[in-house]
Amino acid sequence: MALLVEKTSSGREYKVKDMAQADFGRLEIELAEVEMPGLMACRAEFGHQHPFKGARISGSLHMTIQTAVLIETLTALGAEVRWCSCNIFSTQDHAAAAIARDSASVFAWKGETLQEYWWCTERCLDWGPAGSADLIVDDGGDATLLIHEGFKAEEEYQKTGKLPDPASTDNVEFQIVLGIIRDSILVDPKRYTKMKEKIVGISEETTTGVKRLYQMQANGTLLFPAINVNDSVTKSKFDNLYGCRHSLPDGLMRATDVMIAGKVAVVCGYGDVGKGCASSLKQAGARVIVTEIDPICALQALMEGIPVLTLEDVVGEADIVVTTTGNKDIIMVDHMRKMKNNAIICNIGHFDNEIDMHGLETFRGIKRITIKPQTDRWVFPDTKSGIIVLAEGRLMNLGCATGHPSFVMSCSFTNQVIAQLELWKERVSGKYEKKVYVLPKHLDEKVAALHLGKLGAKLTRLTPSQSEYISVPVHGPYKPPHYRY
Amino acid sequence: MALLVEKTSSGREYKVKDMAQADFGRLEIELAEVEMPGLMACRAEFGHQHPFKGARISGSLHMTIQTAVLIETLTALGAEVRWCSCNIFSTQDHAAAAIARDSASVFAWKGETLQEYWWCTERCLDWGPAGSADLIVDDGGDATLLIHEGFKAEEEYQKTGKLPDPASTDNVEFQIVLGIIRDSILVDPKRYTKMKEKIVGISEETTTGVKRLYQMQANGTLLFPAINVNDSVTKSKFDNLYGCRHSLPDGLMRATDVMIAGKVAVVCGYGDVGKGCASSLKQAGARVIVTEIDPICALQALMEGIPVLTLEDVVGEADIVVTTTGNKDIIMVDHMRKMKNNAIICNIGHFDNEIDMHGLETFRGIKRITIKPQTDRWVFPDTKSGIIVLAEGRLMNLGCATGHPSFVMSCSFTNQVIAQLELWKERVSGKYEKKVYVLPKHLDEKVAALHLGKLGAKLTRLTPSQSEYISVPVHGPYKPPHYRY
Amino acid sequence: MALLVEKTSSGREYKVKDMAQADFGRLEIELAEVEMPGLMACRAEFGHQHPFKGARISGSLHMTIQTAVLIETLTALGAEVRWCSCNIFSTQDHAAAAIARDSASVFAWKGETLQEYWWCTERCLDWGPAGSADLIVDDGGDATLLIHEGFKAEEEYQKTGKLPDPASTDNVEFQIVLGIIRDSILVDPKRYTKMKEKIVGISEETTTGVKRLYQMQANGTLLFPAINVNDSVTKSKFDNLYGCRHSLPDGLMRATDVMIAGKVAVVCGYGDVGKGCASSLKQAGARVIVTEIDPICALQALMEGIPVLTLEDVVGEADIVVTTTGNKDIIMVDHMRKMKNNAIICNIGHFDNEIDMHGLETFRGIKRITIKPQTDRWVFPDTKSGIIVLAEGRLMNLGCATGHPSFVMSCSFTNQVIAQLELWKERVSGKYEKKVYVLPKHLDEKVAALHLGKLGAKLTRLTPSQSEYISVPVHGPYKPPHYRY
Amino acid sequence: MALLVEKTSSGREYKVKDMAQADFGRLEIELAEVEMPGLMACRAEFGHQHPFKGARISGSLHMTIQTAVLIETLTALGAEVRWCSCNIFSTQDHAAAAIARDSASVFAWKGETLQEYWWCTERCLDWGPAGSADLIVDDGGDATLLIHEGFKAEEEYQKTGKLPDPASTDNVEFQIVLGIIRDSILVDPKRYTKMKEKIVGISEETTTGVKRLYQMQANGTLLFPAINVNDSVTKSKFDNLYGCRHSLPDGLMRATDVMIAGKVAVVCGYGDVGKGCASSLKQAGARVIVTEIDPICALQALMEGIPVLTLEDVVGEADIVVTTTGNKDIIMVDHMRKMKNNAIICNIGHFDNEIDMHGLETFRGIKRITIKPQTDRWVFPDTKSGIIVLAEGRLMNLGCATGHPSFVMSCSFTNQVIAQLELWKERVSGKYEKKVYVLPKHLDEKVAALHLGKLGAKLTRLTPSQSEYISVPVHGPYKPPHYRY
Repeated sequence: MALLVEKTSSGREYKVKDMAQADFGRLEIELAEVEMPGLMACRAEFGHQHPFKGARISGSLHMTIQTAVLIETLTALGAEVRWCSCNIFSTQDHAAAAIARDSASVFAWKGETLQEYWWCTERCLDWGPAGSADLIVDDGGDATLLIHEGFKAEEEYQKTGKLPDPASTDNVEFQIVLGIIRDSILVDPKRYTKMKEKIVGISEETTTGVKRLYQMQANGTLLFPAINVNDSVTKSKFDNLYGCRHSLPDGLMRATDVMIAGKVAVVCGYGDVGKGCASSLKQAGARVIVTEIDPICALQALMEGIPVLTLEDVVGEADIVVTTTGNKDIIMVDHMRKMKNNAIICNIGHFDNEIDMHGLETFRGIKRITIKPQTDRWVFPDTKSGIIVLAEGRLMNLGCATGHPSFVMSCSFTNQVIAQLELWKERVSGKYEKKVYVLPKHLDEKVAALHLGKLGAKLTRLTPSQSEYISVPVHGPYKPPHYRY
Repeated sequence: MALLVEKTSSGREYKVKDMAQADFGRLEIELAEVEMPGLMACRAEFGHQHPFKGARISGSLHMTIQTAVLIETLTALGAEVRWCSCNIFSTQDHAAAAIARDSASVFAWKGETLQEYWWCTERCLDWGPAGSADLIVDDGGDATLLIHEGFKAEEEYQKTGKLPDPASTDNVEFQIVLGIIRDSILVDPKRYTKMKEKIVGISEETTTGVKRLYQMQANGTLLFPAINVNDSVTKSKFDNLYGCRHSLPDGLMRATDVMIAGKVAVVCGYGDVGKGCASSLKQAGARVIVTEIDPICALQALMEGIPVLTLEDVVGEADIVVTTTGNKDIIMVDHMRKMKNNAIICNIGHFDNEIDMHGLETFRGIKRITIKPQTDRWVFPDTKSGIIVLAEGRLMNLGCATGHPSFVMSCSFTNQVIAQLELWKERVSGKYEKKVYVLPKHLDEKVAALHLGKLGAKLTRLTPSQSEYISVPVHGPYKPPHYRY
Repeated sequence: MALLVEKTSSGREYKVKDMAQADFGRLEIELAEVEMPGLMACRAEFGHQHPFKGARISGSLHMTIQTAVLIETLTALGAEVRWCSCNIFSTQDHAAAAIARDSASVFAWKGETLQEYWWCTERCLDWGPAGSADLIVDDGGDATLLIHEGFKAEEEYQKTGKLPDPASTDNVEFQIVLGIIRDSILVDPKRYTKMKEKIVGISEETTTGVKRLYQMQANGTLLFPAINVNDSVTKSKFDNLYGCRHSLPDGLMRATDVMIAGKVAVVCGYGDVGKGCASSLKQAGARVIVTEIDPICALQALMEGIPVLTLEDVVGEADIVVTTTGNKDIIMVDHMRKMKNNAIICNIGHFDNEIDMHGLETFRGIKRITIKPQTDRWVFPDTKSGIIVLAEGRLMNLGCATGHPSFVMSCSFTNQVIAQLELWKERVSGKYEKKVYVLPKHLDEKVAALHLGKLGAKLTRLTPSQSEYISVPVHGPYKPPHYRY
Repeated sequence: MALLVEKTSSGREYKVKDMAQADFGRLEIELAEVEMPGLMACRAEFGHQHPFKGARISGSLHMTIQTAVLIETLTALGAEVRWCSCNIFSTQDHAAAAIARDSASVFAWKGETLQEYWWCTERCLDWGPAGSADLIVDDGGDATLLIHEGFKAEEEYQKTGKLPDPASTDNVEFQIVLGIIRDSILVDPKRYTKMKEKIVGISEETTTGVKRLYQMQANGTLLFPAINVNDSVTKSKFDNLYGCRHSLPDGLMRATDVMIAGKVAVVCGYGDVGKGCASSLKQAGARVIVTEIDPICALQALMEGIPVLTLEDVVGEADIVVTTTGNKDIIMVDHMRKMKNNAIICNIGHFDNEIDMHGLETFRGIKRITIKPQTDRWVFPDTKSGIIVLAEGRLMNLGCATGHPSFVMSCSFTNQVIAQLELWKERVSGKYEKKVYVLPKHLDEKVAALHLGKLGAKLTRLTPSQSEYISVPVHGPYKPPHYRY
């Protein structure tokens, strides 16, 4: 695709795959609204007040139908929004088209190149000469990274006149980032500096991005306040767990149609994501094996009847291997060579470096057969045995299916809306320093409460004497901060 | 589509959606072969003997990737094959293209009209002026029906000169059948009579078709021997149960992306199919409710923690309703009107009359919004509340997803191959009368045995003294005929 | 215990452990009645007619609380009853006491010797000089065996004057049987001959007993009609499956208090009993492995995510092994020697020869440490490693816990009552020959129906047009005879 | 029982039910040792150093077989120990006997009166004129309560000469506590003051006790440092969850033999304990309904397919109700009156005030029928309908069965040992103030690690570059403090 920004008749910038899919996207957005009671409740509660009036929000988060409902909640609350996806395969093109046509600037399509991906991210952050984003919604931290790296490079350039040098790194993707920043400095050497001054704060969606934020906080390099949405209970114990329980088999089925029952499935990592994956594989009739570094998580797996072994122990008998670790170098090409013919390899962690795609791609004599987009069979030259890799090692549930379903994303995204509202409301109060925060428990509980009615649930109410007996307010918060759920 | 038969360069007749998808189909067929050890074992065991030499097989069975492997097993064993699908939505177009290009005459595409559907069935049975099918593979009994109705009409015509009259029935589909037969008699008044003389037997795949066969046997109208493949243990207790456990959520996810967890799901019927559906819905986190007419099946549901109620009791709280009964008139338009907004209705039984589509379509003021093919939202005029109907009431796992996965279909289809081999081998021996037969237990056990190795299983062997003690031969059959598994 | 028959003040014969437990037994019987709707419905429907008037019923079936409700249903319907247990450990002494005091002659206590066991069986069949049993309720076939062996020996004695010789067999238990018959002939050489003449028929409860009956039918040696209650759907697919799912962990917990979660549990046999056992072990968090001879059952296990291996493969890693086969020689002493320290071995099949207790007991240097009754640790001399054997290899759920719960036994025993009623009603009609019969499906369905109300279930009713469409009567039977549920 | 302290031949004080059960206790202790690898590892690692040399430990914690292994671990590490149970029904008399005979002073038996219970607690804390406890192991906080109340009363007496007055409270149990303290002051007005001076710290086992500690910390009344063992991950996410999953059905089965399958079971509270209970009830085939005050926990239940309603909504259809809340007044007598005949009511929370036993006992005309110890049927006078109450409303898993199994208690108790070691080691360092602490994560992880080998697990090891990438040390701790598992 030629990387040219387009404009709607009303002048809104965008770049999507196919604007003709906007009607289809709108229909699915309307269905999703019924499944996202938390977001709709935000619109009902806050919409008429326009609390985001004047706020410009740049979001880097999988451009799906669910995200579309998030975006239109932000705009319903008064914000102006620009958006890009945080993964090259995760965009649903009909969602992108509907939003671009109706609500916000979108730069996203399914199957971006890395070059295109970072171009989209840059577009998303670029509010034109007059302005900048006030708030960032981030997922995995790429938007945050670009701003931080941009600012660092501008400082360096300011001091030394030295431009960032893509050749200074082996990492192909980081070469692209440096190239973008270098080109930006040549146009405007204060662009990211101005951006950073303007930004009130960011809210981060996922484990991986949060980890980066805590590292920056520890290093003292964090440029603005950040709210860790991931560690809201109603996010990490729901979206990560129940979302993956749903979307892992969905991705496997759409990509390969393979029967899960009877198969040996290895789940690398037994955190929230791994727990969700293991649960659905087991329930579908697979024999699940877990790999873990953490003895506590390992013991949890054992208590559920799941053996804990190393990948080396089981690589020869696995039919399906899924990585969920948030770490790198989990399945290496040497593992892959030992796997059964047509064993399936996939990743549901944020970044694609859990699987050694580089090792696979550069294996001498390897042959890649694309069964269909995001489903490749790689055949080793010696054995003629092939393995099937999903979504080129990227998030398979978004690459091969449509990601998590609306209801659970409504929990996550209601946290996002609340986090953004909080950052915006407190933008001048000084309440938030350049640190990482989690939302207070009563807001977490509120997010949950907004989702109960849709499922027909009725809560029990504490009596005053019960409330006193357990020292818990009648309206919550109901648990101490260290409670683990 | 214009209903014109096309021909490959080698002269093979076909009619498919898009021959360009043949390469894609071939790749998926190759993947499926690895997952279908029973069929591949048939090729290995019998292929070189060409036991089907001289046999012409007409098949009416969902034209999927798995069926493609069945067809190529039949051709590998020496048969000549013509094929159509037994459902207007169940064809996978790439599978059809690959088979049409490489192996057999195919008349099938996804989204046939009823008129097209019966045209395909007729083409499948039409081996040209010189010949006829020797064997029929049927699924649901439509090919069998056409032959029986055709013969009946020809007899009547012979006796009375009266042609079949489409206007004699209210049933739209049966009008089409009668029209086809009428037109056929005008061309060749002995066509189905000759067909019936030539046919050695049929093997029937599914509960619904089997029910029809037993009725014909009871009435004395069955025209040739039939093998009931459905009631092989390795078919009905596997494909019906584990196949649906897999493909029901697959269909729901692909069609609607709805979160199953937390929802109220009603499964109408708790036979093998219903058991599979209820199991996967429950495991995905739905609250499942079953409706049943049979107290034994009802008590089974209760023992699994599933309440048994009537549809009337629960229609107002259901989020998902799936019919699995094999009966008609299960969800009527009056039920639908009482359902929650965006409740999902679907059918995984063979015929579409489980859901009152006629009542829905003709409801005054009803509005149909097609979200995407096979996913429609129907909005009632008074309430503005909509329900979502999958695959227009037809088999949702084949209409909205790709049907059962290869491994379990390998069990079913290995039974089909064995049944066809048996009918053909005994074509002159008189072993089979015009009755319905099931395969003997040792063949059923053999089908299972062929599928164990792929899953790494090892059987225990009876010692001679154990064999004597329980009066069971060392090599089986291991169970009495009445055993229920 | 001295083997002397005692008498109640009303003259009823009995021999139980402790009559003082009768009140406790009565309280638990009253609780059980609330959980056994099928039996109570029989009392309500038939009680006032006294259909068993004049009938003498001898029963050999675990003398538990549930059986007490069965016995009192038979007496409520007019029968006179004598009873013994069919397992040396399965009697609940308070149940025996309550019945002996209030309702029927009972000869049973927990922890009989084999000699005592057969004495009880003989007492149960002995209605005094004036009479004999008219009907037999049997479980495992021991009462039937005694009559058949008795008759055979009397015939031989008649012909040749030869008495049965206990020394003619190695089997310790069969030596006892022959001794009893020999002593009987010396007193009355026509006792079993007269008995066999009088008996109208038997109804047999379990798989093992049924197997014996079919063997006798095949050999032509069956002396009277037999109804196979085990193969009523509402028996074998409920009691065997759901009963064991409940009572296996119950037995394990009461005997050993061992944590099941995290353990490796091997289930030998995956029939109905094995399925129930595997299900509850898996759900309790064990890693379950199945051994099987039958490829179909093996494939069922695999579809549930359970690996199928041989005992040899896994004996070294098993923490728990349970035999469910109905066969003999499953766990041999050579297996036991290879097991982990404190591995638990138990049997839930009818007979104790599944476990090589003889090999264990006679292992040179073996040391037996009785932890508590029915829980023994056997320590091998070389390794000092011990294994824990439950209930001396006999039915662990009855030996270590209280057997199946009332509700599921109500299904089984309602079949028993119906079978007995049928045999008695047709005692002169000649309807039943000396063959094995199963109950007709409509009675099986009735048994299920009687149990639905207690669980709050509501059945759907077929409309006439639905009934016609699927050729199934509105009031059932709802399935063809070959249906597997 | 006459409340007289007895002495062993070696002079050790004790009061148990039956010293003759010591051998049986010893055998079960030896079995438990094999199942408690964490405790045995403590013995192996620290035993030879006698780190507790000179330490006197008073423990108030269910005197079971598992606790026996804990006690003997403490003594193996050099401590002198006195013990009482923290529940009137939870003692296993054979465990108490074995410990009293072999290892430590024990004052505990199954079925204490409340008066006896507090006498035992007082004995446990009474190290004679010469001394006092250095350390307290507490479960529920009763030992801690007695010391705090004692000290408070002594202060008051010191200041005002006023003695505690049992008549000042309506609470029957607290009357007993005040009476004991009053009598104590009359003998030694400084007893608890001296005790409090001497005590280095306590470690608390359970949620309820921890709640009390945090309240005292908040009030500033906590008299010594406390380690909150409950909130070690390897305690609350294991013992509370997996322990209850095991012991709830165990208690139900032993008390009532009721079939769980098919029943409606209501679980009040969906914390860790409630999750464990709901899980096993569901898996046993019950239809589970949860009641909750906390919207987050409620949403978790819904995601597992469990409806959330109020007790009022479901009280009329429940067959089983279990309270797990840690709160009071959950099932009131007005609920009980509306329940089905023979509905089962039980509590698995720490205190018995979750069930309104007082309301039940004082209901006019109520009739109590004791089926067997800890299983009572209470019959209402108007309806003649009865409900079954387990363990008089106290912890049913310990009252009706044997509590949690050894393996999971090994996790909990290894935390106890580590906590006690830490308190003792730091007794003079001032590291711990009069506050509540949790153990550091690396110790929590160590507890888990000690339990993996027994279950055959193998951990994966981080490579240095992976360790760096995710900023996690190779040897842990592996998670941030807020991680929820």
